[in-house]
Amino acid sequence: MRYGELNPPNRILLGPGPSNVHPAVLRAMSSPLVGHLDPYFMELMDDVMELLRETFLTRNKVCFPISGTGMAGMEAAIVNMVQPGDEVIVGSNGFFGQRMVEIVRRCQGKPIEVPGEWGRAIDPSKVEDALSNSKADLVCIVHAETSTGVLQPLDEIARITRAHDALLLVDAVTSLSGCELRVDEMGIDVCYSGSQKCLNCPPGLAPITFNERAMERVRNRRAKVQSWYLDVSLIEKYWSEGRAYHHTAPISMIYALREALRIVVGEGLEERWRRHQRNRDALIRGIEEMGLGMFPPEHRCPTLNAISIPEGVDDAKVRGFLLERFNIEIGSGLGPLKGKIWRVGLMGINSSEQNVILFLGALERALRAAGFRVKGSGARAAIEAYSERG
Amino acid sequence: MRYGELNPPNRILLGPGPSNVHPAVLRAMSSPLVGHLDPYFMELMDDVMELLRETFLTRNKVCFPISGTGMAGMEAAIVNMVQPGDEVIVGSNGFFGQRMVEIVRRCQGKPIEVPGEWGRAIDPSKVEDALSNSKADLVCIVHAETSTGVLQPLDEIARITRAHDALLLVDAVTSLSGCELRVDEMGIDVCYSGSQKCLNCPPGLAPITFNERAMERVRNRRAKVQSWYLDVSLIEKYWSEGRAYHHTAPISMIYALREALRIVVGEGLEERWRRHQRNRDALIRGIEEMGLGMFPPEHRCPTLNAISIPEGVDDAKVRGFLLERFNIEIGSGLGPLKGKIWRVGLMGINSSEQNVILFLGALERALRAAGFRVKGSGARAAIEAYSERG
Repeated sequence: MRYGELNPPNRILLGPGPSNVHPAVLRAMSSPLVGHLDPYFMELMDDVMELLRETFLTRNKVCFPISGTGMAGMEAAIVNMVQPGDEVIVGSNGFFGQRMVEIVRRCQGKPIEVPGEWGRAIDPSKVEDALSNSKADLVCIVHAETSTGVLQPLDEIARITRAHDALLLVDAVTSLSGCELRVDEMGIDVCYSGSQKCLNCPPGLAPITFNERAMERVRNRRAKVQSWYLDVSLIEKYWSEGRAYHHTAPISMIYALREALRIVVGEGLEERWRRHQRNRDALIRGIEEMGLGMFPPEHRCPTLNAISIPEGVDDAKVRGFLLERFNIEIGSGLGPLKGKIWRVGLMGINSSEQNVILFLGALERALRAAGFRVKGSGARAAIEAYSERG
Repeated sequence: MRYGELNPPNRILLGPGPSNVHPAVLRAMSSPLVGHLDPYFMELMDDVMELLRETFLTRNKVCFPISGTGMAGMEAAIVNMVQPGDEVIVGSNGFFGQRMVEIVRRCQGKPIEVPGEWGRAIDPSKVEDALSNSKADLVCIVHAETSTGVLQPLDEIARITRAHDALLLVDAVTSLSGCELRVDEMGIDVCYSGSQKCLNCPPGLAPITFNERAMERVRNRRAKVQSWYLDVSLIEKYWSEGRAYHHTAPISMIYALREALRIVVGEGLEERWRRHQRNRDALIRGIEEMGLGMFPPEHRCPTLNAISIPEGVDDAKVRGFLLERFNIEIGSGLGPLKGKIWRVGLMGINSSEQNVILFLGALERALRAAGFRVKGSGARAAIEAYSERG
């Protein structure tokens, strides 16, 4: 054979995603296939919808995975909600907010950007201004901005959006099951995520949910949804009683997602959120002890930690050192933050004492090798933080 | 746990897809993940592109899997090639041709349908008429129409299309690696497939290729591609040297596809095509011996066999019997063919003596149980056909 055996290195994936996949999920994924209309598969589909509802904390009927990656989730959410000519408010304080803007444009919508500094949350009063000064009845916002490590507070924006009788569309790609997110209670109308972040499933599926208000708007569209593949009304028919054939579901990925969600629900969402916070807190203690700083001054996302690269340190060299010596992947900055930050994901099973302590130790080694004078021991500081809590 | 362990039945998938997945592919898929920008993954991406070129028989630079199912492949092909107002010729002699029509409409194109009876091939002279009587410069056609079991001859249509300086877009979802398909030699400009048919990989990826003529048209578009997720110019940037981030590749599925393609290339395409024909021939011998008939009078596709359901036999009962007693899945008819045909896929590893003989035996059992008077032994006739060839 001209192409060698598959033999991937055993990485610790602390970048912006994918995260490591739980061994039980890998095992589930390697089970023999059944047909996508098999009675057994229908049961699994029901399980997946129910498990997703528990994870999104919603009672929405429409709640299933889109057969594509997180970005397909973003496009599915927007393409169904936006019609040509619609004014749409988009929070734009990072890479993924800007992608929403681009997709709104491709749907022939008119994006009204609510700008925010990269590394800061969107100011709810600016969303209110935009709603007051436009005909927009849809607000799109990123919950955990993967490019900056900012966790956007949603309560106030949700309240304002509802007060203006507009709908709220939330990108929860990097937050679902890692950060507090309560779709129904918070008043989120459309929400999507990705399988490869805090769910510890391989990339390839985008869980999505639409509430009844959102679906009513979809049903009353003047024009058909421009994407046939992502038309939620057609996909809904496949994911409900009639099982009307739309496309062939990615069976093995559905096996994987079901297993991943069983693990999430088994741990319990609130315990899971607390665990992500605990490990994030210890990480920050370590980072600061070493004389480094976090990039976002506040609203720091517990699943994606943006660390400012200290002056004079070579970004790629440090990342290369971590990868080659420690098999640890971390992420670089995107767009204007290239060379300015590292992005360290602690997502799902990867949010652990073990990873925090190991990463801080490895980072100290890499920084020393890069000639940076590390102040105190980050690993030690994290151990202290954990020990205090018992 | 409220949701039980995953424990799928061990099906023999002889429906219209998915087919059974090769054990080596399942094993590859369960390997630990690397990041989608990992140096190791970049090598795999190069392998996959090269293996796909060998499988499509093309030297096209743009040749990679779309991160969605076969239907995402169809949408990707059309959405990149069609602009608002474009007249587009579509061969419409089955369910999937009609879907192409629908997607052309959603791209604001004007489909010019070249109709054909379901179960018959499209008449090339009608394609020529349509080209002569319109401004269309794109012809879309399904190679293996999964809904009818017809294998469309492509040479003549390709010649006519080229003579009119139009482009040819071919759906090879059910034919790639199972039926003779030579993208470059046949003059196909855009071609897509699905992972879950003759490649014996789980559903979730859509291999696609665009030649330079097609890419030139994409680059000269007046309007941006309406789908951001399926914009081939953006995806190409991720799949070439720069590796510009577009979306997170479905890592595990790429592992699976690479392994599946290694198996295809290892066997050799021409040998593989012959094997599919040999098993199809034996199946037909058996079917006719039993007193049944094939649905398409000619141009029968070797990977998807449409069998006419005899008068008075209950479609669902027979399929249920096969599934429950033999763990064999076959497909029902779609649309107007519901209740009229069974669709029996012999795709990739599933195209085997073993499956043909077993299926014919099982079908005889099921037909007898349904009260149908089976003429001769189908299994015996197939065994004879195989024995004659030695």
